[in-house]
Order: sequence, then C-alpha cells, then structure tokens
Amino acid sequence: MSLVIVGSVAFDAIETPFGKTDKIVGGAGTYASISASYMYNKVKLVGVVGEDFGEENLNLFKQRKINTEGVEVVKGGKSFFWSGKYHNDMNTRDTLITELNVLAEFDPKIPTSYQDCEYLLLANLTPQVQLRALERMAHRPKLTVMDTMNFWIDTALDDLKEIISKVDVIAINDSEARQLTDEYSLVKAAEKIQKMGPDYVVIKKGEHGALLFGEGRVFSAPALPLAEVFDPTGAGDVFAGAFIGYLAHVQSLSFNNMKNATIYGSALASFCVEKFGVERLMNLSNEQIHHRIKEFVALSKFDM
Amino acid sequence: MSLVIVGSVAFDAIETPFGKTDKIVGGAGTYASISASYMYNKVKLVGVVGEDFGEENLNLFKQRKINTEGVEVVKGGKSFFWSGKYHNDMNTRDTLITELNVLAEFDPKIPTSYQDCEYLLLANLTPQVQLRALERMAHRPKLTVMDTMNFWIDTALDDLKEIISKVDVIAINDSEARQLTDEYSLVKAAEKIQKMGPDYVVIKKGEHGALLFGEGRVFSAPALPLAEVFDPTGAGDVFAGAFIGYLAHVQSLSFNNMKNATIYGSALASFCVEKFGVERLMNLSNEQIHHRIKEFVALSKFDM
Repeated sequence: MSLVIVGSVAFDAIETPFGKTDKIVGGAGTYASISASYMYNKVKLVGVVGEDFGEENLNLFKQRKINTEGVEVVKGGKSFFWSGKYHNDMNTRDTLITELNVLAEFDPKIPTSYQDCEYLLLANLTPQVQLRALERMAHRPKLTVMDTMNFWIDTALDDLKEIISKVDVIAINDSEARQLTDEYSLVKAAEKIQKMGPDYVVIKKGEHGALLFGEGRVFSAPALPLAEVFDPTGAGDVFAGAFIGYLAHVQSLSFNNMKNATIYGSALASFCVEKFGVERLMNLSNEQIHHRIKEFVALSKFDM
Repeated sequence: MSLVIVGSVAFDAIETPFGKTDKIVGGAGTYASISASYMYNKVKLVGVVGEDFGEENLNLFKQRKINTEGVEVVKGGKSFFWSGKYHNDMNTRDTLITELNVLAEFDPKIPTSYQDCEYLLLANLTPQVQLRALERMAHRPKLTVMDTMNFWIDTALDDLKEIISKVDVIAINDSEARQLTDEYSLVKAAEKIQKMGPDYVVIKKGEHGALLFGEGRVFSAPALPLAEVFDPTGAGDVFAGAFIGYLAHVQSLSFNNMKNATIYGSALASFCVEKFGVERLMNLSNEQIHHRIKEFVALSKFDM
C-alpha cells in the first residue's frame, strides 16, 4: 500500500517583496510529496527532470524517505523552469519565464513497485499527463485527488474536464473554481464541479482558508493569520500533499477525517510560506506540526 | 442597565443584480439595533430622522421593542438618503446618491433614561458625532464598541483616531483596516489598531468571515457559504449589533464570550443578506437563529 504523487519537479526562480532567489528546487510534485511525507511514510513520486537536476537535489527526496524510482532523469535534458514575481499584496504574481523543457514530452511511467498504490495525488500538471498516469494504474486507487491551475482551464479544458470526471476529490483555488464554472458563489461553483465528477471539492482561498464540500455538507477551515507571508509558492501543492497524506495515514475517508485532512493541509501550507521554496518544509519536527495544529484548534474553536 | 446604539437612521435605495428597491428603511443604527434586539431586550437607539420618516417606519423599532426616545425627529427635515448599486460580484458597489439632510447637523442627545447605559455601540457615523455621544454618557460604559467606514478614513482621520483611542472594541472591515494602517497583513494591521486604543479588534472579511484579535489571541469565525447573496447592505452593522447585543446578554467580557459574540454577529449578518434591507431581519424566530448557530458549529467544528 502506498501514496503515489504525480507532479512536476522543477527549478523555480522567485522574487517577492522580501527578496529573490537563484534557481531553487520547486514543482508541484516536489512540494506535495515533501508535505505528504510528514503525514505518511510510503510516498512514491512520479515526475521527470533533466540531467541538470543533479544528485544533490534528488537527495532532498531521499532525506524525506520519498521513493523516486518513478522520477525519470532525461539524459542531456533540462528540467522544467519557472520564474515569477509576486506583487506587494502577495496574492497576485506575474510569470516571468516558463521553460517546459523535459516536461514538454513527459510520458509518465508507473514503476511496478508503485502498483500497490491505494492513494493517488495528481498534483498540478498537464491534464493529459494526469489522465495517462491514472490509466496506467493497474488497480483503481481507493482515493484519487487532483489539483489543477488556471493555465489548464485556458488551454486544455476538454482534457481537464475528462480528468475531473474521473477523480474523487479536486482541490482548486477560489478564482479557478469561479473561472471553471462561471459562478461567483463558491457554493454554486462547488455544486457544479461535483456534477462534473468529484464527490468532494476543496476550494483553497489562500489567506482566507479553505472550504470542503461533500456529502451535502460544508466545512470551513481557517488559514493561520500570519504577520508575514514570505513566499506563497507551492502552498497549494503542500496543502494537497498533506491532505491526501493524512487520509492515507488514517486509512479512512469519513467526513470527519476529510475535515482533519483539510486542517493538516492548511497547517503544512502555513509553514511553507514562511521561507523561500521548500526550505521551511525540509526542517519540520513532529512537535512543530503538532503545535501548529493546536494553533488551528485555538483559532477556530468555540463552545456553543 | 441597557445597550445604547448611536447610528444613522435613513432611507436607502438599493440596486443589485437581483433587483432594485424604492426608498426603504436603512442606516447603520437601524440595522445594528434590530440585530441587537434579538440578543438583548433593553436596546435604546440614538439617531435623527426627518419628518418624512413617518410613524409607520418608526414602528419597525417598536415591533422589536427598541426604545426610540433618543431618535430625534426634525420637523420639516428630510431623512438621510443613500443610494447605491452593487456590482455582479456583490463585493463592490458604487454610491449613486448621498444626501446627508438632517444628518448634516446632527447633535446627538442622550435622554436621561439612557444614562443606565452599560454597553455602548457607536455604529458607523461621523467620528465627531461618535465622540460627542460618548462624552455625553454620564458614566463610562462597561464596554464601548465602534464601527466606521472608509469615507471617514478619507475625510475625518484626526477625529476618527480620537474616537478609536477611546473605545474598547473596533469592528472594521479588512480593506478599511489596511487603509487605516497601511499594512497589508491583517495581523499587523490589527496590532497597529490595538496600539491606537482598542483592546479588541474585529476585522470583518465579508464572505470570508471575521477575525477577532485581543488578549494576544486570535479567533477566526467563518462566514456561512451562501449560494446567493441578495443584498449585502447593512451586514456589517448587523454584525456589530449582534456582537455587542450578545455580550450585553451574557454580561461577560471573557475571550470565550467575545468569540461567541463574533459567531452571533456572523450568523445574524448571514440572515441580513438574504433579502433587501431589513426585511429578513424583521421576521426571525429564535428557532431560526438557534438553527443557524448550529450550522456555524457544523461548519467549523473538527475533533483533533
């Protein structure tokens, strides 16, 4: 039994009002798998990098005991590269450079050792690659969660709708949910997305937390109010990784556990934004996570 | 012992994507006092109207057992009139008409029968009038809560800062908190506002709920996810009215009760937006309120 995560593994160069980075390790698969590794100990990653990625960067995954047998290294190839600049409000950003490189031809291969997959996360990636990865699973996973982004709504809507029709849970941010459904109300947007396939819809609202819709119920998870958001890159991927990682850990899909998974997702995301890239995520202790979860309890608990 | 609410009593004409109204009763004092009347039974209103307001409209307050001895009726005067149009997202609006009328010369009089005031709400109004009302209280109230709006930040900042320095709680919306403090982070904004005077800062975030800051703690209240927001006018005033009304009812200022007050504020506001003006608020049963509070519990409760 394992949790398989399919997603990009990449280099990012990020500029925020707090500073800028050279090329650092990024990618939805990276953020999601590192996050999930704090919840569950059998995380297996599928992705592709170029020869430039190097052993020292692959070591990040080894440090977190993430299986990288499914991460293809393309000889002579260059890794996916994204560069972006955040505005002062940290809620909007401009993409400066997108070089698909080895991601352009990515054909996901699922190693035999991954076919014990019970939990599958299709992290943000080309919908066609998400579809192919799902098809190549010998058994239908117990739970399939997907993420996406506005770029795929704009450029690959048909494929996106097809993969949405095949998953159990979609995690999507508020503006994307509105764009996908043409509904301003998130209640109506979630209803429409549920009709497209997923039983559960998680709408990520950044600094405003997340809403979980499913079984005719709604759960509102707060975001931790932060004095400083240093770098929001990857927070949504980290959310998705911890969400499915928690469910894999507890081996239960009850609504109560879905709620807890949403809280764990929010908690891990709140760490992610404290430093550039995956830096903060590489150095978390279980005590720190436990303490942050307690902060979420204090933040939202009332007795009535 | 009583709860005194100082605020505008007015006519509004509202246009939303769902329809438009003729002149209907509005004003911060109106919304706040009607809301508070569901929490506490000794609500006393201070305000001013013109002769055009009429007995039938003053009857709205009588129906809710709100004392209107402090509502001055200016003979031959016209009531404050505001007209606005909401955009499709319901989060932004254009003001079409503002006729101050009798509000321009408003000098708040506090009837002797109001001097048993223990809880004082200075609802959204000219900061100078808020200051004068507070000065005219024979005894310092046990708790003074104020609300304001961007217009006063733009046009009466010095008076606004003076009244802010004298209250215990300020309820303010997120964009106003940012404008007032020049801080994007709501944590930093709340800290700055606390340094200006109030021990507690409630930041209202509309569809994203509210944050309560005080005693070095934070509480995040969700907003009820709604399929349709019919008319957002007055929701912030309703929040403030139920907030202080709840505290007057329980006669306790513990942080736990502040949290509950925030939930009651959010719950009453969620009713307000379901119909135009005060219509929905005039016809609430205790059972409906109780049921809505239960929805807030279900919405935000998790067990960890």
